[in-house]
Amino acid sequence: MRTRVTELLAIRFPIIQGGMQWVGRAELASAVSNAGGLGVLTALTQPTPEALADEIARCRSMTAQPFGVNLTMLPAAAPPPYEAYLDAAIAGGVKILETAGNVPEAFIAKAKAAGMKIVHKCTAVRHALAAQRRGVDAVSIDGFECAGHPGEDDVGGLVLIPAAARRLQVPLIASGGIADGRGLAAALVLGAEGINMGTRFCATQEAPIHARVKQLLVDKSERDTNLIFRTLNNSARCVKNAISDEVVAMERRPGGVAFAEIHHLVAGARGRATLESGEVENGLVWGGQVIGLIDDVPSCADLIRRIVLECRERLGAGSAYFQ
Amino acid sequence: MRTRVTELLAIRFPIIQGGMQWVGRAELASAVSNAGGLGVLTALTQPTPEALADEIARCRSMTAQPFGVNLTMLPAAAPPPYEAYLDAAIAGGVKILETAGNVPEAFIAKAKAAGMKIVHKCTAVRHALAAQRRGVDAVSIDGFECAGHPGEDDVGGLVLIPAAARRLQVPLIASGGIADGRGLAAALVLGAEGINMGTRFCATQEAPIHARVKQLLVDKSERDTNLIFRTLNNSARCVKNAISDEVVAMERRPGGVAFAEIHHLVAGARGRATLESGEVENGLVWGGQVIGLIDDVPSCADLIRRIVLECRERLGAGSAYFQ
Repeated sequence: MRTRVTELLAIRFPIIQGGMQWVGRAELASAVSNAGGLGVLTALTQPTPEALADEIARCRSMTAQPFGVNLTMLPAAAPPPYEAYLDAAIAGGVKILETAGNVPEAFIAKAKAAGMKIVHKCTAVRHALAAQRRGVDAVSIDGFECAGHPGEDDVGGLVLIPAAARRLQVPLIASGGIADGRGLAAALVLGAEGINMGTRFCATQEAPIHARVKQLLVDKSERDTNLIFRTLNNSARCVKNAISDEVVAMERRPGGVAFAEIHHLVAGARGRATLESGEVENGLVWGGQVIGLIDDVPSCADLIRRIVLECRERLGAGSAYFQ
Repeated sequence: MRTRVTELLAIRFPIIQGGMQWVGRAELASAVSNAGGLGVLTALTQPTPEALADEIARCRSMTAQPFGVNLTMLPAAAPPPYEAYLDAAIAGGVKILETAGNVPEAFIAKAKAAGMKIVHKCTAVRHALAAQRRGVDAVSIDGFECAGHPGEDDVGGLVLIPAAARRLQVPLIASGGIADGRGLAAALVLGAEGINMGTRFCATQEAPIHARVKQLLVDKSERDTNLIFRTLNNSARCVKNAISDEVVAMERRPGGVAFAEIHHLVAGARGRATLESGEVENGLVWGGQVIGLIDDVPSCADLIRRIVLECRERLGAGSAYFQ
């Protein structure tokens, strides 16, 4: 396939693996890149910039294809050494940076000066336009259906993607709610030139998470997610279970909920522990509404191959309605 | 165009006008049908079955093309005489019935015996499957983005449409979040064979509502809707204004809100008064997230023509990415 996204990132298929905390490691990123998509290492999954450098080297030993590094910059009292992580990516020869959150202009300038292509991920058209003005090379826009943080606007991809595509000049990547070739085809006709998939890539052979987490994503339906932390203005979509149900109930209480009360559920380590132990009833597992479209745990190569085939077939079927 | 939906309904383009209370009158329905889509009269917009009979006759005098009648059956202490409305549609020679809500099997049997095709509208895959088992000819599924009542599952069309398409045998019509040719193309590749549009048809020359309501839909963005009555388990999406903001705030209060408190905002006559007076700040106006995709107030003929052209163009652009 050939879109502005495949050209920009020098990949065969415009299918990008979402930069997921604790999941975006060399095993998954290299598998996606070897299959013709773009694998992405998540910088903050590594405890230090030095560990990121090692992970980049490990990924490079597993694939000769391009892969990216995700750097999500959130407000924090004691922020991670973001610039050192960026430096590690640059020193490691990574040419694609996925950014999210509040990215200082100096970071964009530094990455561009190092020859990186920057894909900025956001959840609203106004943020996409701001990122474009600041010089990013492409924008990835995340609709309401997505796992993790959809923002607080609640605009579904069916509206958000064309709304963004109509106004952006840089290539658009559709994220959230996409898990198959139907979704890729829809993203393309809505005006995107590529897709980003997170939840779907968690349910692959190569995803470095416990098999029970993958089976959870297979078993659940599109109705089985919860939107939590809404009352904290930090909404996050996760798989419905007793824990996320409890958070929702606490948030509906008169007076709402204090962050401290649910901090033990939020802490990154808890999510990591669940992904590693597979005790999916005892923690939070991020997941998008596409869990209703996931029926198996293929290899990344099989997944990408069939998505591309189904996409082409669906576009042909659509055109045939005009005959 | 030719899909199972155009074949079933004997229409040129698989574009159906949503059965909107106070809006689904002969002026709009005939314009949509004359343009090659399917216009729909809303039965309960008429005060009596006799008035519906008159409206059907009036619509027939304005178009030689097929049009439908919508019958939405909601639980009520003193329900309208639903069967008499159905009888009026049958006697008026209407061959397409759009149902919504809880439709008794006897109604389906009666409509089918009269030679009607039945399109059932719902908001969840399990309801779509139940309707199929009960013998409806097609299902229209309404995603989270839609105006009015999206249900309580909050599944975006990008996921809900393929989830339904994968499991249904009868033709699927995608509803909610669609306002242009990109949306029609997306619906087709996701597995639907037609679209239903409500909000978009409100912003047409022929919609029998005040020009200020149409301008409101042009002016607002995809972020300018509110989901109200959530705490009553009767969620409804309407255009954001001081009134709907007030309802949302009341629903967020500790203890929530009692229906009686907001009944004056809900009453159908209030919505009707706003549509007729154009005093859009003084009442509730139903509207979907597609208000972010609406930039003008064309005739129904111009709207349908350009949707079909854009759809074809977008499907071609999608296929070209494979060359």
